[in-house]
Amino acid sequence: MSFASELEHIAALVEARLDQLLKPEPAGGTRANELAQAMRYAVLGGGKRLRPFLLINSARLFGVPEAASLDAAAALECVHCYSLVHDDLPAMDDDSLRRGLPTAHIAFGEATAILAGDALLTFAFEILSGDGAHPDPAVRVTLIGLLAKASGWRGMALGQALDLAAERQPFTAADIAFMQAMKTGALFQFACDAGAVLGRADGEARAQLAAYATALGQAFQLADDLLDEEGSAEALGKAVAKDAHRGKATLVALLGVGGAKARLAALVDEADKALAPFGENAEMLKETARFIAQRRA
Amino acid sequence: MSFASELEHIAALVEARLDQLLKPEPAGGTRANELAQAMRYAVLGGGKRLRPFLLINSARLFGVPEAASLDAAAALECVHCYSLVHDDLPAMDDDSLRRGLPTAHIAFGEATAILAGDALLTFAFEILSGDGAHPDPAVRVTLIGLLAKASGWRGMALGQALDLAAERQPFTAADIAFMQAMKTGALFQFACDAGAVLGRADGEARAQLAAYATALGQAFQLADDLLDEEGSAEALGKAVAKDAHRGKATLVALLGVGGAKARLAALVDEADKALAPFGENAEMLKETARFIAQRRA
Repeated sequence: MSFASELEHIAALVEARLDQLLKPEPAGGTRANELAQAMRYAVLGGGKRLRPFLLINSARLFGVPEAASLDAAAALECVHCYSLVHDDLPAMDDDSLRRGLPTAHIAFGEATAILAGDALLTFAFEILSGDGAHPDPAVRVTLIGLLAKASGWRGMALGQALDLAAERQPFTAADIAFMQAMKTGALFQFACDAGAVLGRADGEARAQLAAYATALGQAFQLADDLLDEEGSAEALGKAVAKDAHRGKATLVALLGVGGAKARLAALVDEADKALAPFGENAEMLKETARFIAQRRA
Repeated sequence: MSFASELEHIAALVEARLDQLLKPEPAGGTRANELAQAMRYAVLGGGKRLRPFLLINSARLFGVPEAASLDAAAALECVHCYSLVHDDLPAMDDDSLRRGLPTAHIAFGEATAILAGDALLTFAFEILSGDGAHPDPAVRVTLIGLLAKASGWRGMALGQALDLAAERQPFTAADIAFMQAMKTGALFQFACDAGAVLGRADGEARAQLAAYATALGQAFQLADDLLDEEGSAEALGKAVAKDAHRGKATLVALLGVGGAKARLAALVDEADKALAPFGENAEMLKETARFIAQRRA
């Protein structure tokens, strides 16, 4: 299967599973539906589903069929989407557009958006606690611990806090790298590691995948910064050059566009090398790194 | 041990454990500390720790020593405190005072308060995923599933959403009861059920405790509404009569103060009866119901 059709295939699977998981109407009548609707609005209806794609393809390296890694992938996507909802809030990045549509707080109001984010985060752990995530409770609890760490006060939430600080204070290249490793890298790390855990991979394989995820996360962020510098709002479906206008430090600002592109190519090489021990089975993950480096939206 | 000193004893234990769990400084230097500081601000420094008290004393019914239920209790308190931080936000209840101190967003800014709430919620699941919560991963994953359900889109978060709706729409007594069962009752239910799960209680014992928790949650909310109607800001450490000023529906508004007090007494009786099968061992939990009904702050 080509990379493009595999990406589309996994996105459709994840979309359908999330739709199913969030389908049953809560008690409490129509009023209660507003929260569920906001959650569905935030989590359904598009996106590349890159993190689920990574998780499912990492698990596949160890012989795990996609149906067996789908719930973990759906849980991860809930965490990613909650972080977008809260990041977009007026007190945070104050964005009104996401994937070409009004952000959750524009569509549902700020209070409902805050709660929908909270509920999506909570729902991720509900999904992971269920039999569908893995038959062995010990594996489920390992995944839960890893996801909580990756998204919490020493992971993604820390990265978001540092990202806000970067608007007010001077950040060195090392500061930015650390911030991005937390804000974006931690969930990429989780995606790959969760696949390995589901496949009961050994420590060596996990370390190789972790090296891949590190390079991939850095590449993703660098590509994102380049898009913010060069992209069009139309292609991205969100406001561009916001970071530059705010005087926010990015690696592109520090390295220049040329330097950033050279670094991006080096990161794709690093990702490739980390996957060498997996041979041809890792082709899809290798292509992911190239896709991330080349994406235009 | 008297009820008052037992309450104080558990509160000190929970405080010390949360302090310890949130002690290690995150990487990323002083900037990174702001998020951790906001989390500590929100979760340390007082409060009755009623939910941990219920959890620990429910577990004790089944022979579980307090040291073995402390981590689950700490996790529950993190969820409770996150909900307070987000509830207090300008877009939600817009409160500037909590336990006599500035609320988290007043002290740390709105963005950091949102993230601190997110991170506390996440941290609860990190705590529950750890060995300290219970040696058996199957028990840990059960607790995680129960807490996620109790605090999520069909539990507490739903109750918060309905509470906001109650400011804009007419609510019947049944609507209010359902909203309160979600907003407040769900975490009381979890507290008691988690104790039973830690003690590997049978279905019958769990059902009895659930009936107790239902009555207790209703009593707590009714007492809260009565305090809001009659209490002083000084004793409560927060603004009073806010609900009435907003024209928000409460059971006190529907039943009258006299009717509400009669209902409160009936709920204490219900709580008492539900605990009958546990005999004298349940004395502390019975006293909790009386304490809740009589509290003045």
